[in-house]
Order: sequence, then C-alpha cells, then structure tokens
Amino acid sequence: MLGASDGRQRRGTVGAFFTVRPASARAGAQPQGLPGARATGAREIAVFDAASETFSKPNINCSIDQSLDRFAEICILALDEGIRIRGYISCVLGWSYEGEVDPGRVAELAARMTVMSCAEISLGDTIGVDTPDKARSLVKACAYETDIERLSVHFHDTYGQALANILACIEIGVTTVDTAVGGLGGCPYATGSAGNVATEDVVYLLDGLGIESGVSLEHLMGITEWLCKRLGHPPASRVTRALLAWHKRPSAVSG
Amino acid sequence: MLGASDGRQRRGTVGAFFTVRPASARAGAQPQGLPGARATGAREIAVFDAASETFSKPNINCSIDQSLDRFAEICILALDEGIRIRGYISCVLGWSYEGEVDPGRVAELAARMTVMSCAEISLGDTIGVDTPDKARSLVKACAYETDIERLSVHFHDTYGQALANILACIEIGVTTVDTAVGGLGGCPYATGSAGNVATEDVVYLLDGLGIESGVSLEHLMGITEWLCKRLGHPPASRVTRALLAWHKRPSAVSG
Repeated sequence: MLGASDGRQRRGTVGAFFTVRPASARAGAQPQGLPGARATGAREIAVFDAASETFSKPNINCSIDQSLDRFAEICILALDEGIRIRGYISCVLGWSYEGEVDPGRVAELAARMTVMSCAEISLGDTIGVDTPDKARSLVKACAYETDIERLSVHFHDTYGQALANILACIEIGVTTVDTAVGGLGGCPYATGSAGNVATEDVVYLLDGLGIESGVSLEHLMGITEWLCKRLGHPPASRVTRALLAWHKRPSAVSG
Repeated sequence: MLGASDGRQRRGTVGAFFTVRPASARAGAQPQGLPGARATGAREIAVFDAASETFSKPNINCSIDQSLDRFAEICILALDEGIRIRGYISCVLGWSYEGEVDPGRVAELAARMTVMSCAEISLGDTIGVDTPDKARSLVKACAYETDIERLSVHFHDTYGQALANILACIEIGVTTVDTAVGGLGGCPYATGSAGNVATEDVVYLLDGLGIESGVSLEHLMGITEWLCKRLGHPPASRVTRALLAWHKRPSAVSG
C-alpha cells in the first residue's frame, strides 16, 4: 500500500472550512466578489474550474481558458491581501454529456492552479462516476504536476463508490478529503447526481483505520440531525441513519 | 497492493447461487433438512455458524459448539451425496450486544469448517461495522488457517463501508464476494442493520477495476427494478438509483 504509512502519520484535514466564492469567478466578469469577500473577513476564497468545457459553460458561464484568465487576476489580488486560495476542478473523471476526461488535462489544470498559488486543489468527481484505480491514476498524474499535499479529493456518492475511492487515495498519500454533513447536496446540472460523500461516513472510515481526523462522530451526528430537520431532508449518510436507528431502538427508548 | 494482480487474473464469482439451508442446521435438531434439500435436487447446502454466542442463540438456536457438532454430522452426509457445502460465519467483526470479536476465534471456526470440507467459507459482517484494515486483518488470519481461495467476504452496508472493505479484501486476493440484488435484506436481530451490499454497486466497482465478474450491469438493473416493484421496496443500490434517474431524465423521456 504505497504511501499508506505516510498518510496515516499526517493529521487529516477533514472538517469545516468557511470559504467565500467570489462572484466574479463564477460569472467570468469583474473580480468585484473579492472586495465583498474581504469585507466579510474571509481568510480564504475559492475559484471553481472544470475539466469539461460543456460543464464549465453552465457552471461558471465561461470557457476553461477564460476562467483561468479570470482566476489569475483574482489570485494576484487575493495574494496581495494574504487571503488563501482554494482551487476546484470539477468533472475530473468525466461529465455526463462529454464522457471520460483525460487525466493529463486535469493535471495540466492542477499545474496552472499551482502557479497561481492555490494552496489547495480539490479534484471533483462531480457526477460520482469514479472507481478506485481511476481515482489513484488521476491523483498520481496531478501529484506529478504539483504535490500530493496540495491535493484534495472530492467525490459525489452517486454510484456509492466514494468511500472505496477515498480509501484508494489516502493509501497513496492524500490527506485532505472534501465531504458534506449528512451527504446532503448534489449538482443542479448532473441528473441523478448524489451529494458529496457524507462527512460521518468518512469519519467512521478514518476512525476504523486509526487515522485522526479531529472530528467527533458523536458531535457530528448531532449537527446532521439538526440540519436535516431544518431542511426537511433525511440524511444520505449511512452512518447517521444506522446510529439514529440504534439510538431509537425500542430497548433504548424503554431504557 | 499485495495480491492485487492475482485477484484480477481470476474470474470473480459474483453471481447467483441457489443454496439450500437444511432446517436442522438452524434448529440444532435432527438433520432432516438434508433429505429435503436432496429431494429438491440441491447441489449445494449451507451451514450457518456465528462468531458470537449471543448471536448464535437467536439465529440458529444453539451454542457455537453445539452447531459445530451438528454441522459435522450434516457435512458427512452431504459429502456422501456429492453435495457441495458452503459455510457461513456471522458476526465476524462484532455483534451489537457483545462488542468486537477476536479474529483468532473466527479463524478457528474457518479451520473447523475447512476440516468439515466446506468448499467455501463466507465471513459475514452481519451488522456492517467493519472497516478496511480490520477486514484485511480478519481475512489474513482466516487465510492462514484455511486458504484465501476458499474465503468469501459478506458485508452488510449498515455504515456504508462495504465497498471500501471489498476493495481492501480483493486487493489481498479475495475473489468471492457475497452480494444482494438491490442491496435488499437485512438482519432481524440487528437493529438498523442494512442489507447485504448491493450486487450492482459491487459490479460497478469491479467493472471500474477491470475485473470480470460475468455479470451484466444492464441486465442486473432490470432484475432489481422488477424485484423492487414486486416487493414494493426502493432499491438500496446507489448504482441502480442513479441509473434509473438517468434513464428517466426529462431529455431521455422526450427523446
């Protein structure tokens, strides 16, 4: 298991980040979002790119090349302010209307984002079609162009493969995993696409592997339960559903 | 990845088996189930044991030692008839009312079943609490006492870890995986326990890894859809839910 011991010695960065997405990065217009982000006291912004032209258009309303030009402008301004930048690359494994994506293309984008001083680059399997070998190959291709510590993996759990992919990636040294509380969310442009992998399910995996994430499963469950009630949406997290059923079993209720 | 190349060269045995469970193996009484199984033309029977005494009692109505005595008797009779025997060990990673189970205890049961000529031994994580490192350790402990080709892994997907566990196990050489169409089922004695991992999700994983399972995802989906309609139960399989949503998207319906 290449790099597994390295991965386990490092503390994972699973947790909550409050990142502001500048409006301009989305609209491909003026970077007016950045002053707004600064005004909120944001210490981190995110720029969203895609490895698929046909996804880039509906998602950020410009071509990949246009978005990179805009990002470069935003990144220079943000760096001047000491604001950290997180880069996202969507559709790294494919897109429903365009098929598979060449890992080399994603790696090239990762290289460009590295030059722009993105502190982290999130590799997003937006439609959740990934499987472990492809995930590993993609991470390795990108790590060659940047470095593995800068990479985060971001799996939607559409086909239920997210945890297997995460296992494959952390075993080759990835230490940052994007997740969503309760597995909530999705993608408005991807029919049937599930939300980002549930934070609880990833924490359960990491706990089982003896990898410290700094996240308490018990506390997290409380947050998920509260959030799902507010949203009127059942949790997509298997762990949360199982633990809630266990806590509510008749013998627990009757003492 | 220890043994991965071996695992991939072998054809997986994911698929459908029609196995008869002799009534006596469950009741701990006379082996009257075996003649009944023979009368149906069964070429394979299954004996069900557990690694937890407190699970063995409600599940097969006898202690582990008592069940082994009964199985020995059944196995001798079955072997005389040329009937193949599949052994199941439940709760290999733990049981809700007893906590974790010692892998050595499971390995000892696997050794006993091997002596009884069980052609396959299924290691069942009945409550679905397993994570990849523990799954790997258990398989290795059992493979030491029998051989890895005889072992099958059987994960309920209660905590969503099944595919990650399967990945970990096939990468060390396991080639047989128990699954359930649509991820249906569960365990009447395990509160909140989900069904066995969905066949579709495992086939999707194997397809992605380039491992031939002999199962067509397209055909399988049709079976799942039919079965779920008959049972009035939505599929627990992520793959099936995603593909059904994709096939039913507005653009597909309108052509």
